Amino acid sequence: MIYFDNAATTWPKPPQVRETVARAIERYGANPGRSGHSFSVETAQAVYEARKNVASFFGAEAAECVAFTGNCTQSLNTAINGLARRGCHIITSCLEHNSVMRPLESLRLRGIADYSVAYVYDDDEMTVRSFERLIRRNTLFIVCTAASNVTGKLLPVEKLSRLAREYGLKLVVDAAQAAGVMDINVSADGIDYLCAPGHKGLYGPMGTGVLICSSNDAEPLVRGGTGSDSFSLLQPDYMPDKYESGTVNVPGILGLSSGVDFVRDKGLAKIRAHEADAVDYIRGELEKTPSVTLYGDYTNRGYAPLLSFNINGLYSEETAMKLDAMSIAVRGGFHCAASAHRYCKTEQTGSVRVCPSYFTSKKDVKSLLISIQKIAL
Amino acid sequence: MIYFDNAATTWPKPPQVRETVARAIERYGANPGRSGHSFSVETAQAVYEARKNVASFFGAEAAECVAFTGNCTQSLNTAINGLARRGCHIITSCLEHNSVMRPLESLRLRGIADYSVAYVYDDDEMTVRSFERLIRRNTLFIVCTAASNVTGKLLPVEKLSRLAREYGLKLVVDAAQAAGVMDINVSADGIDYLCAPGHKGLYGPMGTGVLICSSNDAEPLVRGGTGSDSFSLLQPDYMPDKYESGTVNVPGILGLSSGVDFVRDKGLAKIRAHEADAVDYIRGELEKTPSVTLYGDYTNRGYAPLLSFNINGLYSEETAMKLDAMSIAVRGGFHCAASAHRYCKTEQTGSVRVCPSYFTSKKDVKSLLISIQKIAL
Repeated sequence: MIYFDNAATTWPKPPQVRETVARAIERYGANPGRSGHSFSVETAQAVYEARKNVASFFGAEAAECVAFTGNCTQSLNTAINGLARRGCHIITSCLEHNSVMRPLESLRLRGIADYSVAYVYDDDEMTVRSFERLIRRNTLFIVCTAASNVTGKLLPVEKLSRLAREYGLKLVVDAAQAAGVMDINVSADGIDYLCAPGHKGLYGPMGTGVLICSSNDAEPLVRGGTGSDSFSLLQPDYMPDKYESGTVNVPGILGLSSGVDFVRDKGLAKIRAHEADAVDYIRGELEKTPSVTLYGDYTNRGYAPLLSFNINGLYSEETAMKLDAMSIAVRGGFHCAASAHRYCKTEQTGSVRVCPSYFTSKKDVKSLLISIQKIAL
Repeated sequence: MIYFDNAATTWPKPPQVRETVARAIERYGANPGRSGHSFSVETAQAVYEARKNVASFFGAEAAECVAFTGNCTQSLNTAINGLARRGCHIITSCLEHNSVMRPLESLRLRGIADYSVAYVYDDDEMTVRSFERLIRRNTLFIVCTAASNVTGKLLPVEKLSRLAREYGLKLVVDAAQAAGVMDINVSADGIDYLCAPGHKGLYGPMGTGVLICSSNDAEPLVRGGTGSDSFSLLQPDYMPDKYESGTVNVPGILGLSSGVDFVRDKGLAKIRAHEADAVDYIRGELEKTPSVTLYGDYTNRGYAPLLSFNINGLYSEETAMKLDAMSIAVRGGFHCAASAHRYCKTEQTGSVRVCPSYFTSKKDVKSLLISIQKIAL
């Protein structure tokens, strides 16, 4: 099978990720931060090293700024629900995933917070103005994706961060498609809450995510045992304990850290260039294919390396099924991002999404193109 | 190292659990329930089989009643926060872990719900009456542990379920120490929300938990992409999607299912008997050791196979450190359960907790006793 569904989860994983996970189940098998015995302390130390590793990868101030979660969605729910205050207002973009939109809509329906949706333009300055126009007296934070999971469109995170600073707002960033692929430095970029999956561009196992916080402003989503302040009925107010209740996913966390090592070793810029080469080539060929429609304006290169297309007259799922019959895995449908589909005007068809990874070969790309062209004939 | 900290997490895991996790990273590496391609469908099928397996193990009506979470704490937070309604009242026991107490206290502090704490007696009928006396007009549910994580004391879950039915209340059960060790059948026992960790008595990897629901009454804690109803901004109202947002922990879930197979193959009753034999023997010997204090009245055998003790004149952590120096892993301190320590009158010292597993040998037990006796001299 030729796998182009890396925007859903990367596959294959580097062999060392699998080995680290398997080894962790034996070697780091005690509950970290709970008991004082050596085995627990060694496990806690291994988790701390992973925390430091992720912190340094994303330019966080300290290891403690990194909380491990189950996935990016859990990180986003923690940040969004945790920052929202009764009567507040939130601004998001028109390209968001349901992991942002559903928590926001729930806050609205429960009468806790209101939100506005900013249009995203090809011109970054216009996008920033589009956010700025929506700022109200009671606006508390901006939450937006770093890169659309449908078209790869990048949002001007740094510029939005400056806007947020100017108006005293917090900035929450969904790095589901960007982490491990685009340069992200939470300190330099001024990101208050970075939410990222472990199992996509960071090549960790499914079941992992991170929430990187510049402060402990957000209320926790989950409360419980933290192995700290055990006698208090209050969740500890310090990081990472505030955002990590119950036993953490030790094998997953160590696997994620091994994935981060992989990205650092190969070089994030090199991985991105490899993927961008593949996407550029695919796009170039598809542009020449008359019955194919591509989404997004790629002229300004403000895109992460993934793309969405349709073959005229076919629903995206039909194209995906036909490709699957030729042993090529892509994703059709709506990618849990209704809003982005309205933006692309693909509410009816969805889109076929293609996303390469470090492991995608030129042969894979050629096979994909030959197969698409067969269907498009 | 001789490991007696199985109440924190079981170790070692059965070899097939580690192998299943490692294999899943390769073989079931696509995102389940998202894309329509064969690899994703095969992964979704594997997750569904795991769901069916867990459902049948706990006597749930259907696979859909099982939602996979990151740990028991996340399951409890989903049930407790999801069932609470503004102005409601909740009843819990005096033996609860912080995974129950901290969410309850937070609901109280935020003015959402009030709660009362029922005293637990050695006599189950008295315990039930103690819960009954606290029922108010606005009581919505009971949340309690099946077995104390400090002493192993069992709560009369079936009787509490009948009480709950009688008064139209829901019953949420924390099976952190009971799952995989005590008989639990959610249908026969009348448990509305069963919360269990995957990594303790079920021998799955850390980072796994389950929430088994008889209904979809609870609001979800996390909202986001579910691969279903993608065009709706509302979280799907059906199970398990309602309680599973974002990419699930595929390797963890398949590992957990393999752990459940292990328990079923060995026989839950046999595992419990093996552990109870160890605990009974340890208790018997410690009762003869003059400077040792044991907690809990074991005469009526209403205890899960774990025990807590102290050596007079030593803080529990000191004893644990001394045992660690003799290569024996036990847990000292407060076990994230302040309330239970008040009950045991160990607020000052904490307690040393000993919990065997299927893999605990007679030799391990003897080594533990010799070491304790050396310290107690």
